[in-house]
Amino acid sequence: MPVSPAPVSPVPVSPVDASPLGWLAETGAEWTADPQILGEKRLDRSGWEPDGRPLAVVFPRTVEQVQGVLRGASVTRTPVVARGAGTALTGGSAAGAGTVVLDLSRMDRIVEIRAADGVAVAEPGVITADLDRAAAEHGLRYAPDPASLEISTIGGNIATNAGGLRCAKYGVTRDSVLGLDVVLADGTLINTGRATLKGVAGYDLTGLFVGSEGTLGVVVGATLRLRTLPAATATIAAAYPDVAAAAAASVALAEARIQPVLAELLDAATLAALADFGMPQSGGALLIVQLDGGADEAARALDVLKRGATSVRSDGDPASLLAARRQALPAIERLGRPLIEDIAVPRSVLAEAVRSIADIARRHDVPICTLAHAGDGNLHPIIVAGSYGSPIPVAAHRAADEIFGLALALGGTVTGEHGVGVLKRTWLAQELGEAQHDLQRQIKAVFDPLGILNPGKAI
Amino acid sequence: MPVSPAPVSPVPVSPVDASPLGWLAETGAEWTADPQILGEKRLDRSGWEPDGRPLAVVFPRTVEQVQGVLRGASVTRTPVVARGAGTALTGGSAAGAGTVVLDLSRMDRIVEIRAADGVAVAEPGVITADLDRAAAEHGLRYAPDPASLEISTIGGNIATNAGGLRCAKYGVTRDSVLGLDVVLADGTLINTGRATLKGVAGYDLTGLFVGSEGTLGVVVGATLRLRTLPAATATIAAAYPDVAAAAAASVALAEARIQPVLAELLDAATLAALADFGMPQSGGALLIVQLDGGADEAARALDVLKRGATSVRSDGDPASLLAARRQALPAIERLGRPLIEDIAVPRSVLAEAVRSIADIARRHDVPICTLAHAGDGNLHPIIVAGSYGSPIPVAAHRAADEIFGLALALGGTVTGEHGVGVLKRTWLAQELGEAQHDLQRQIKAVFDPLGILNPGKAI
Ligand SMILES: Cc1cc2nc3c(=O)[nH]c(=O)nc-3n(C[C@H](O)[C@H](O)[C@H](O)COP(=O)(O)OP(=O)(O)OC[C@H]3O[C@@H](n4cnc5c(N)ncnc54)[C@H](O)[C@@H]3O)c2cc1C
Ligand SMILES: Cc1cc2nc3c(=O)[nH]c(=O)nc-3n(C[C@H](O)[C@H](O)[C@H](O)COP(=O)(O)OP(=O)(O)OC[C@H]3O[C@@H](n4cnc5c(N)ncnc54)[C@H](O)[C@@H]3O)c2cc1C
Repeated sequence: MPVSPAPVSPVPVSPVDASPLGWLAETGAEWTADPQILGEKRLDRSGWEPDGRPLAVVFPRTVEQVQGVLRGASVTRTPVVARGAGTALTGGSAAGAGTVVLDLSRMDRIVEIRAADGVAVAEPGVITADLDRAAAEHGLRYAPDPASLEISTIGGNIATNAGGLRCAKYGVTRDSVLGLDVVLADGTLINTGRATLKGVAGYDLTGLFVGSEGTLGVVVGATLRLRTLPAATATIAAAYPDVAAAAAASVALAEARIQPVLAELLDAATLAALADFGMPQSGGALLIVQLDGGADEAARALDVLKRGATSVRSDGDPASLLAARRQALPAIERLGRPLIEDIAVPRSVLAEAVRSIADIARRHDVPICTLAHAGDGNLHPIIVAGSYGSPIPVAAHRAADEIFGLALALGGTVTGEHGVGVLKRTWLAQELGEAQHDLQRQIKAVFDPLGILNPGKAI
Repeated sequence: MPVSPAPVSPVPVSPVDASPLGWLAETGAEWTADPQILGEKRLDRSGWEPDGRPLAVVFPRTVEQVQGVLRGASVTRTPVVARGAGTALTGGSAAGAGTVVLDLSRMDRIVEIRAADGVAVAEPGVITADLDRAAAEHGLRYAPDPASLEISTIGGNIATNAGGLRCAKYGVTRDSVLGLDVVLADGTLINTGRATLKGVAGYDLTGLFVGSEGTLGVVVGATLRLRTLPAATATIAAAYPDVAAAAAASVALAEARIQPVLAELLDAATLAALADFGMPQSGGALLIVQLDGGADEAARALDVLKRGATSVRSDGDPASLLAARRQALPAIERLGRPLIEDIAVPRSVLAEAVRSIADIARRHDVPICTLAHAGDGNLHPIIVAGSYGSPIPVAAHRAADEIFGLALALGGTVTGEHGVGVLKRTWLAQELGEAQHDLQRQIKAVFDPLGILNPGKAI
């Protein structure tokens, strides 16, 4: 669709100010330049601070309004930062000087749940857990469950390819996205993918948009795969003397041909931080495993997990243990300002990775709490980087750099699920290599020739 | 990597001829221009005939040789058709005048099975079933199982994003590909993705290469996800009076929260064709279901499938029934030349799709046997298009066109798993729409600016 010149509105209709953003009013979407709202919407949850403040925040309610915003942004060359809930941990949804924040949180309708097809259609602003609850009414579920599921949006999950606990068995967000409605940089709307569970027509643009962090287009609708809600789940928590023993137990499960729904490993520092949140304090490491393959499977898993364990609980109270696990970040936040890292390594070197991270903590004398999605080798070393308000200690940055280097040295990646944002761009270049990085830049240029989509992020 | 001019060999080293292809000899790879081999390698299994014959077939054994071929092809502007086993059903691996066939079947090493990581590394020429068998020795499996698994290659499966029977539960090829080694059009080697189960660094080039039918780059290595081999599987075959009842049974399974590994539906025409292959002949439609969730699940599935069935077998002999199902194509080939179609529709309209296809067969007076991967709404209507050697009847083409139109009208896609090749290009344009088709062409141009990679295919 050709870019049409934005009509210039003679009298700015903004409720708040008369900034050069008259074209925003033309879109019919609500918008504001209220300094307090700008202050909130300039940050995500990474702690990273952009230079300056955005020009405005716009709250479209329709696809047409999003198209209008992007057409206007193209004409005026205004950078646009798409935003769901702003829970990114990478600076990806942070918005600095000269940008417009395109806040999609008001496009929050679950359009359709087609239970017989195993498919849901949702707007980008739907809260992840709301979709899962709506699916549950049909005996289905939306599987991807980042720990932020009660606050993050489907659009943000798609744009970051969010992982979660259950992805050990049910895959990451990408594995649940069948098709997307995307508004391109010039305002054109395209529909990628399909409404069927299977299809191979053309290049996989759907997969390309997933994880692209708002740099290739704006997701305004998604066709998502729902999965069968299991008849029953069993949860087992096993404490081990140390992380190596807990990691070995997780590998032993795989060797016994058991695929857990989730397998969460918590190290001693994380367990201690969670003492007030109902987390049992026995052992130097805890493994929480959930299974949904029936009573036989649960019994076999219990046998495997018992070996080497100092204590095992399978008291049928999954909610309390997992709820405590999901409080890990708030708990650690009480110790100081968290730098949340996110590496992934081959599953077999998980224990080595956790041990090396503990070494790094000792050498740099910074506390690091490590939790891991053990089933897929994804670790979150959370560095406690001094107290809020004071500058981040140099030692914390050094420790973080060593953790990234460790990930690559172990054949892993510098981001398992949180994405690149601004914080990991240099490491990304190293991980991709020059030829591939260059291809990625060329792809960016195909979708966003003017460079207005979340510039400086992800790539 | 810059394209270096191909050194011109003064004396052609070809064992067969002294064609203008002296540069091929420089790559060190074996190659031939033997007319008989050219005749074999110009065709795939679609029945589509390209104009003329390829110039040569080259059989690299190393990545460096593949790089050499693509460098030479870039310099000489020679179109290259990558080829695995040539089992494509779309014309995708057919090679016409002026092309070089890059046959990867001799790069057939399983490089590594890292059981504890759940990962395999394989060369592109590995036969799909061989990888699965090698994984089974470690209690693991390579899940994607196209019916061609004993003859197709991993590289071909990746390039077509092959589906299969088990993908109802375990996903298509894309869901098992973690990372790729790809030689680009100019000979540059890149490594996409990762060796870990999870990772989100950069745009998903891995997913873009999957399903790209040799038009974006040549896959020379793959890091693949292996899954836990289930402790036990149960197979149930239930016969129903008609397709509608069989399709309803498959939906009822989902409603009972049971996720089968596979759910294959065969219509009356297919059952009749399979009479000599040990397929039971009771009922107007058969549903074969496999489960791997334990004895409870199998018992519950049996209860569901019994409703409305004329007969049910669960005699624990899965191999024989599935083996008979896998013979569907050879069996139908005995009736005449098959045109194998491949549409996917939302699961809930499966019965409607099968009924409409039967109507189309009646109206055009051409026999059509329909089998379906019922779990994901993927149908294969196989049109018996006259006898071998005689021209394909116009009625068969008309019937095929109506089937594609039906797929789109039902909200589905013109290709569920076989891909676009040459046969479905016009339908692809219709399914994608102009804006998206144009984006896809621009992506093609980024990867293949000279247009030498499998030109005229897929896009
Ligand atoms: C307590 C906590 C726990 C977390 N746990 C996890 C976890 O387990 N797993 C995990 O993967 N992440 C986790 N995260 C990170 C974060 O929640 C995820 O990245 C989430 O997907 C972001 O969703 P959001 O709606 O907040 O997106 P935002 O932060 O608003 O945006 C994230 C990125 O997506 C882009 N974007 C947003 N919406 C759109 C759209 N509609 N179209 C195009 N681009 C868009 C933005 O520009 C930005 O680049 C956690 C964060 C917190 C604070
Ligand atoms: C009896 C029979 C049953 C079948 N059943 C199924 C089924 O159940 N599901 C299904 O999806 N398909 C099925 N097919 C179709 C076919 O087997 C698949 O498409 C298969 O993936 C092709 O593999 P191949 O090695 O034969 O590839 P080829 O036919 O050699 O090539 C297919 C495409 O991939 C490209 N290509 C091949 N290797 C590479 C490489 N290394 N790098 C880049 N590009 C490459 C080619 O250029 C071509 O475009 C069936 C075919 C037959 C004959």
